[in-house]
Amino acid sequence: MKCLVLLSGGVDSSTALYWAHSEHEVVATLSFDYGSNHAARELACARYQADTLGIPLRGIDLRSLAPHLSSALLSGADAIPAADYAEKNMKQTVVPFRNGIFLAIAAGVAESVGAEGIVIAAHTGDHSIYPDCRESFMQTMQQAIAQGTYAEIQLLRPFISMTKREIVTLGAKLGVDFAHTYSCYCGREIHCGHCATCRERREAFRAAGIPDPTSYLA
Amino acid sequence: MKCLVLLSGGVDSSTALYWAHSEHEVVATLSFDYGSNHAARELACARYQADTLGIPLRGIDLRSLAPHLSSALLSGADAIPAADYAEKNMKQTVVPFRNGIFLAIAAGVAESVGAEGIVIAAHTGDHSIYPDCRESFMQTMQQAIAQGTYAEIQLLRPFISMTKREIVTLGAKLGVDFAHTYSCYCGREIHCGHCATCRERREAFRAAGIPDPTSYLA
Repeated sequence: MKCLVLLSGGVDSSTALYWAHSEHEVVATLSFDYGSNHAARELACARYQADTLGIPLRGIDLRSLAPHLSSALLSGADAIPAADYAEKNMKQTVVPFRNGIFLAIAAGVAESVGAEGIVIAAHTGDHSIYPDCRESFMQTMQQAIAQGTYAEIQLLRPFISMTKREIVTLGAKLGVDFAHTYSCYCGREIHCGHCATCRERREAFRAAGIPDPTSYLA
Repeated sequence: MKCLVLLSGGVDSSTALYWAHSEHEVVATLSFDYGSNHAARELACARYQADTLGIPLRGIDLRSLAPHLSSALLSGADAIPAADYAEKNMKQTVVPFRNGIFLAIAAGVAESVGAEGIVIAAHTGDHSIYPDCRESFMQTMQQAIAQGTYAEIQLLRPFISMTKREIVTLGAKLGVDFAHTYSCYCGREIHCGHCATCRERREAFRAAGIPDPTSYLA
């Protein structure tokens, strides 16, 4: 199947790209810049991963949306809660309906370039505090995208029943260079090691028994 | 209900704004600039309608999406087929998944500003050649938006069972100044009078028996 891969440049989407490259024909990757703290670091990693496989990257500039969407993710590193994912803290980092917006744009681009599917790296560890990460949402959005496009574009969620540990294991097997992936919500050059996404990243490598190539500040 | 109104500045959405203003609390209107031929003329009309009711207009700049979405609507006036809506011609004017993209962004903005509903002026005359104008799509997208937002935001479609003639009749009753609405796909200062949307507009006023304040080139 000709498909687009949503590629943020993190562990999950980089592995999804390698998975799609092995199972399907990836016509392009899509990277969204919505003015997040970590956009520049993520985009550099996304570009590295796409270039490595010789797949075009389409950078979608959504910075004009930032003034209209409320989230700590769009407000500088100091606003990020340094804690595990706990509802009271992490709700601050929600970009409202972010996956819905990304998937809708991906559907329009897919129809324009003749792709039949969109790959998203949603997984079981995506926190249920984000309503647009839940599988029930993904199922309905899949139906909306199929109904709203001529090509009845499909939404592929290969990791929907996998943990982040399992994704790291698969990525290592497929040859993903994790040194060129980025997770930290703070967006600095080096992973902070303290924010919720850094903690998840570390723990996934540890649990998978895969050497973690990441430099952490602490 | 606190709601956002999608406002293009055409007959339908201007009437939807007046309807929502009479039935609900409109916290803002949203106007999307996706690089269409008619963006400037439409936006001026949208601003007039919002200003008249004292409602803030949020202009959402999506011109960065234009290079990724294929459509004659994004390619200059000469590319617009001068004919009635016939499938072979009008498919050229489809912006893939346009309503899906607009509604997804509207959902994110609604969640950010505390709105509980989104109003879209979809009606029975919206052509079934556009899959993302069909009511089946709207129903599924409504469900996706409710599932993907904390506020379980609703998608209001007050005109879904109405014709454009009925919308003109309602708009006249509600006091919409139709001289400040714009429909022409060509995007010139004066309505061309020939393109499919101009023909529909003319016919709706004629059928409704409402004086048409529009100047047409021919």
